[in-house]
Amino acid sequence: MSVTRPLGFRAAGVPAGIKGAGAKDLAVVVAEDPAVVAAVFTVNRAAAAPVVVSRANLAAGPSGRAVVVNSGCANAGTGTRGMAAAEAMAATTADAVGCDPTDVIVCSTGPIGTYLPEDRVIRGIAEAVAALADDEAAAGAAAEAIMTTDTVPKSTVVAADGFVVGGMAKGAGMVRPDMATMLAVLTTDAVVDAGVLDDALRTAVDRSFHALDIDGCSSTNDTVVVLASGASGVRPEPLEFTGALTAACVHLSEQLAADAEGASRVVVIEVTGAPDEETARVAGRAMADSALVRSAFYGGDPNWGRLLGALGASPVEFDPARFSVWFAGVQVAAEGEPVSYDEPALLEVLAEGNFEVRVDLGAGTAAMPVITTDLTPDYVRFNGERS
Amino acid sequence: MSVTRPLGFRAAGVPAGIKGAGAKDLAVVVAEDPAVVAAVFTVNRAAAAPVVVSRANLAAGPSGRAVVVNSGCANAGTGTRGMAAAEAMAATTADAVGCDPTDVIVCSTGPIGTYLPEDRVIRGIAEAVAALADDEAAAGAAAEAIMTTDTVPKSTVVAADGFVVGGMAKGAGMVRPDMATMLAVLTTDAVVDAGVLDDALRTAVDRSFHALDIDGCSSTNDTVVVLASGASGVRPEPLEFTGALTAACVHLSEQLAADAEGASRVVVIEVTGAPDEETARVAGRAMADSALVRSAFYGGDPNWGRLLGALGASPVEFDPARFSVWFAGVQVAAEGEPVSYDEPALLEVLAEGNFEVRVDLGAGTAAMPVITTDLTPDYVRFNGERS
Repeated sequence: MSVTRPLGFRAAGVPAGIKGAGAKDLAVVVAEDPAVVAAVFTVNRAAAAPVVVSRANLAAGPSGRAVVVNSGCANAGTGTRGMAAAEAMAATTADAVGCDPTDVIVCSTGPIGTYLPEDRVIRGIAEAVAALADDEAAAGAAAEAIMTTDTVPKSTVVAADGFVVGGMAKGAGMVRPDMATMLAVLTTDAVVDAGVLDDALRTAVDRSFHALDIDGCSSTNDTVVVLASGASGVRPEPLEFTGALTAACVHLSEQLAADAEGASRVVVIEVTGAPDEETARVAGRAMADSALVRSAFYGGDPNWGRLLGALGASPVEFDPARFSVWFAGVQVAAEGEPVSYDEPALLEVLAEGNFEVRVDLGAGTAAMPVITTDLTPDYVRFNGERS
Repeated sequence: MSVTRPLGFRAAGVPAGIKGAGAKDLAVVVAEDPAVVAAVFTVNRAAAAPVVVSRANLAAGPSGRAVVVNSGCANAGTGTRGMAAAEAMAATTADAVGCDPTDVIVCSTGPIGTYLPEDRVIRGIAEAVAALADDEAAAGAAAEAIMTTDTVPKSTVVAADGFVVGGMAKGAGMVRPDMATMLAVLTTDAVVDAGVLDDALRTAVDRSFHALDIDGCSSTNDTVVVLASGASGVRPEPLEFTGALTAACVHLSEQLAADAEGASRVVVIEVTGAPDEETARVAGRAMADSALVRSAFYGGDPNWGRLLGALGASPVEFDPARFSVWFAGVQVAAEGEPVSYDEPALLEVLAEGNFEVRVDLGAGTAAMPVITTDLTPDYVRFNGERS
């Protein structure tokens, strides 16, 4: 049911002809009554037109009625013509739903640098709004319509004490340095004030999508939006609500990682012994960003020298003589030097699939995980194809 | 002849048993008389033991007699035991040549995180010094002995007005984010003061190896060293000498790019219209560092949206509405929007091999090229193998 499971929401997903071949490519999620809205947008300087429009609409007030999403075209790198198209998406949705254009959040995802087929999108919005429903099929169609290179739709439902959080997301290969778009639309029937909703979303994103390396080096279109209908009549404690929203975001981000383009494994790099969380995060990213490190992950090779080399080349200040590394719980380097371990046994474990790498900086007590994937020949083949 | 072509130098390359299978893995280059020395080392925080020792030796004075290089082991991530091994390499070479240990520059290249087989290296140094010669075979053996994943040895000779610059280098797949080691040993018989030699080397590296993205994100072992014997008796103007040294370094760096691990093309990203050269360089690197951009290069895909996305996610401040892109001289984006062009004709050109991409920021007159390669399935396969 995902986004339609919380009370007060309807959804639809239809083929508007952007992707072609009858594929669903336009989704609308609508709150029956004005909902409280919060969103986190990409920090990319080349933000797409829909992001610019949505930011402005949200700035007009934390109240909203609808989210409209198209796949098949990012509407990024499209100048003033792209801005007009994004504004038209908001206006058309607002007309159909019966609200102000500023009550609409607009999202687009797909290739950058091509213009949106505006007529088809406008027609698609009308069809989608006509098809709005609160059943499982409608929510499923919406989750399907926002997919691009995703191999499966992603959705979640977190039932808490008297209220529910639902969500859908798209994204594959979104782990840095891929920078493919990730979108997530979350709904809840909890009664939540705008300030609490915004704080909760930022915390939830920080602990979920953020660990996937999205906001620091995000694509032109990344957006996470949440609408709170209040229809349950239950007003949870902020901490309780944040916990439920975080659980939903973590569940969605795990589905994103598992569906990364061409990846054969998900690898969590946990940096420990850092002076602070930010240093741990920067260190984890520096290692997760290295093509050489991620190629070694592909080979199931506990090559800690590549981790050391990648970290040494980053801005992180650390003492190489205090650098220790574990692969799947087995220590392979201690205080900057190799240690003996049962290599055949470890290789067998790493060959099995996903694994965890712990890197200790020996400089404090802060820790932070970064979720990444291996770099595979399939990834390159996939991303080398013309889209 | 490379390093032995300038007057006053001998060289040797022998198998010391580090790599095994009888492969040459130890090289020595010796100046007959004390030479003027300058070097540029890695900025990696986890600098290898030989780099630490060489830096200290150079700090003792810009005079030297020998460079000793082993391949098959980087002697990085090896702690105090590694430091002792690097010091032993300098001391053994000094003993054999008849100079002070501080007159020796030590270089190592190969996998990180394994200890050097010290006994074999010591024996190899003795054998190499005994085999020193100034002929072509000796210079070729030295260039071969410093190879790791290189498929061909790299050497250069630049004959200038009354003096000669020679050089050899190793490095393959050294383009960021690979961070594999690059080493270069240059010799000249020009009469050059220490200050001029140091300035000339920094300029030469900046215009050659630097454009390959080495110093900003360099490996644990990167070293470029030059010895000036003065044996020609000719003292060129600093500008003339810098030109010859730069030509030698550019020639070597071109050979490095062409031999990048698993790459199928060399792509030069020329950033133009930048407010200053540093901004142009940072912008070029941000795009060259993107796995998604380099996968598109592999596919011969003029996907300018990925360039925009990668740049937008970087720290470079630019106006996406002034972003223009040319592939192989054909404009594909103007002022942040797509433009029409003869796509089949361009795809045919890009399919042929190496090409140039120009990205204009529309914000000034500064320009800077960055040399990169495509990311290929072979790269991942190669770097996923356990070494």
